Amino acid sequence: MVFSERIDRLKSSLIREILAAAQRPEVMSFAGGLPAESMLPKVDWAPMPASLGQYGMSEGEPALREAIAAEARAIGVSCSASQVLIVSGSQQTLDLASKLFIDRGTEVLLEAPTYLAALQAFQLFGADCLAVPQESDGPSLVALRRRLEQHKPAFAYLIPTFQNPSAVRYSEEKRDAVAALLDEFGVTLIEDEPYRELVFDEGRARPIVSRLRNASWIYTGTVSKTLLPGLRVGYLIATPDLFPYLLRLKQSADLHTNRVGQWQALQWLGSEQYRLHLGELRSFYRLRRDAMQAALDDHFSDLADWQVPQGGLFFWLQLKQPIDTRTLLDSALAQDVVFMPGEPFFADPEQNLGYLRLNFSHVAPERLDEGIRRLASVIREALVVEAA
Amino acid sequence: MVFSERIDRLKSSLIREILAAAQRPEVMSFAGGLPAESMLPKVDWAPMPASLGQYGMSEGEPALREAIAAEARAIGVSCSASQVLIVSGSQQTLDLASKLFIDRGTEVLLEAPTYLAALQAFQLFGADCLAVPQESDGPSLVALRRRLEQHKPAFAYLIPTFQNPSAVRYSEEKRDAVAALLDEFGVTLIEDEPYRELVFDEGRARPIVSRLRNASWIYTGTVSKTLLPGLRVGYLIATPDLFPYLLRLKQSADLHTNRVGQWQALQWLGSEQYRLHLGELRSFYRLRRDAMQAALDDHFSDLADWQVPQGGLFFWLQLKQPIDTRTLLDSALAQDVVFMPGEPFFADPEQNLGYLRLNFSHVAPERLDEGIRRLASVIREALVVEAA
Repeated sequence: MVFSERIDRLKSSLIREILAAAQRPEVMSFAGGLPAESMLPKVDWAPMPASLGQYGMSEGEPALREAIAAEARAIGVSCSASQVLIVSGSQQTLDLASKLFIDRGTEVLLEAPTYLAALQAFQLFGADCLAVPQESDGPSLVALRRRLEQHKPAFAYLIPTFQNPSAVRYSEEKRDAVAALLDEFGVTLIEDEPYRELVFDEGRARPIVSRLRNASWIYTGTVSKTLLPGLRVGYLIATPDLFPYLLRLKQSADLHTNRVGQWQALQWLGSEQYRLHLGELRSFYRLRRDAMQAALDDHFSDLADWQVPQGGLFFWLQLKQPIDTRTLLDSALAQDVVFMPGEPFFADPEQNLGYLRLNFSHVAPERLDEGIRRLASVIREALVVEAA
Repeated sequence: MVFSERIDRLKSSLIREILAAAQRPEVMSFAGGLPAESMLPKVDWAPMPASLGQYGMSEGEPALREAIAAEARAIGVSCSASQVLIVSGSQQTLDLASKLFIDRGTEVLLEAPTYLAALQAFQLFGADCLAVPQESDGPSLVALRRRLEQHKPAFAYLIPTFQNPSAVRYSEEKRDAVAALLDEFGVTLIEDEPYRELVFDEGRARPIVSRLRNASWIYTGTVSKTLLPGLRVGYLIATPDLFPYLLRLKQSADLHTNRVGQWQALQWLGSEQYRLHLGELRSFYRLRRDAMQAALDDHFSDLADWQVPQGGLFFWLQLKQPIDTRTLLDSALAQDVVFMPGEPFFADPEQNLGYLRLNFSHVAPERLDEGIRRLASVIREALVVEAA
């Protein structure tokens, strides 16, 4: 069987395998990015018009596009509904952007670490990944400038608000500086914002795309983290030079996004009910964040360093002794605990050993301490073996 | 702006533009493949479990995969649920198969004419299309053998049951012969079956994949033509050598198909309610087929030749004088009528002038005769101009 050359780059997905392992009910999973079941809002389907069963427009439902454009304008992104494309979850934005920009050998610029499903999508299409190290307030500006001086990436893919996996929120200063650099070098920005609304403090974080003066951009978001991931409804907003191509690529990918999910999303966006739901979600996740912080303080102080996340769903731990955390998965699973090794979030995993991503939204607080304790013991044991 | 090289091959979609033009309520559209609004079944959402709001598996819902495998086995396709992948409409199968097989210059084998969105998807990824002429009972076997002797296509993409656009249903003999040829040359088959259930006579049509002995295959279908296209739920069934790759490509494309649509599809598949609905659908469309046949007899006998379709949604007309039907669109639209020109259904449109695809499911019978009359007059006028 002869496959396309890109199939050589199709990685077996570690996430898939870990999530499959986590299906057993006794397993405590810190691996995924799943919303807490109990916080999925109750939705009403009865008022949905029967006409939504028919084929729809590739662009998406007009009223939903209007609502998304209005929300984007409210956070400073100047745009109209004609720039909004409804996608089948924001993962699809990565697929469409890959098709638009990436040939084999095309350079793209990413944070290190970055979202591993983005890394895999870009690499599948043959991208050469230029990494810019993440600092506690955003990317290293020195490294970013150097990359832009020496390369001409097709785009920069950034997750400035509660980055996955690092939980970093770019500072205002770095947002401005990144925008200025992308403008200076004329590099397109893809800004991925799934976690924007899951914020636990009063910090502000106006999107970087709203600070650009001339660079092209794609801004992408989803209702998966705040409403229901099972709907598979996300969106992208793009500058007019990019939009027509993305629209045709969308049509070729799946004609249009399912209309029942689009209708349900529209019932919530911008409503008082949604505002209340977001408030409850933030309180709920803040408590879980606090519970994990307490457990980490108890069991990981001597093992790792981390920042307390001000939003999102993850802690990002750097082990004081950099061991390959992928090798810990089997022992952890034997203890009925799973986590995400940090290595796959880097374009060069072998150069970046010793990180873990821990989700705090899924495991109930009363079981969490025990799970973190077991995970710490797995690491301690590995360090003993390593030292021996 | 530098795009990927594939963007040079991204065609502006004629379908999109025609459907947009057909939005005006006074326009009679024979262009699309839309189910009749009045035949969209009433569906009940109330019993849907809230847990379907959560993320799901990339493979699709286990119960739906079982139901689809059972239906496939009932029509002779030997398979298990583990070979079923739920996709976001069967258009996505074309995208996933393109990613799996097609590099720039990869040869693929297609019917001439073939489904134009498949043609566009394959060409977007860089395929060289080998065409096999369609006869009234399936592809020319002489041409098929010659193609296979002289080339090594990555796959053959065929629509054997009420082909879009030609409405041809392969005979039993041709199904056997095509299967034997693909086995002989070891060429993978992609069999696309959206119209299987929309059948107006007692004719049988066991899938070609069920007749293969050793060639690999992908069989793809959808609930869009029999239930609700707005759900965007389709499926593929693949041989075990292909399935793991398609699954990972699916995950990279959009994680998984929306679960609310999957749940709704499961309520229908295999049920008595569905059997009754299909019966009503067939009667309804048969009447519309008959109405269009009568109108064509009245207005097109001297202009074109056609077969009476025994299923599907389309008539395929060959003009007795081959003029480029794309040039007729503006005059037709001025008469508030739209149709699909036949040229885009061919890999080499300029060599295949003078075909039209007419949908019979959408326009109500009482308006249909007038629409067909107007369309005939547009063609007559063009022929006069041509002759002058």
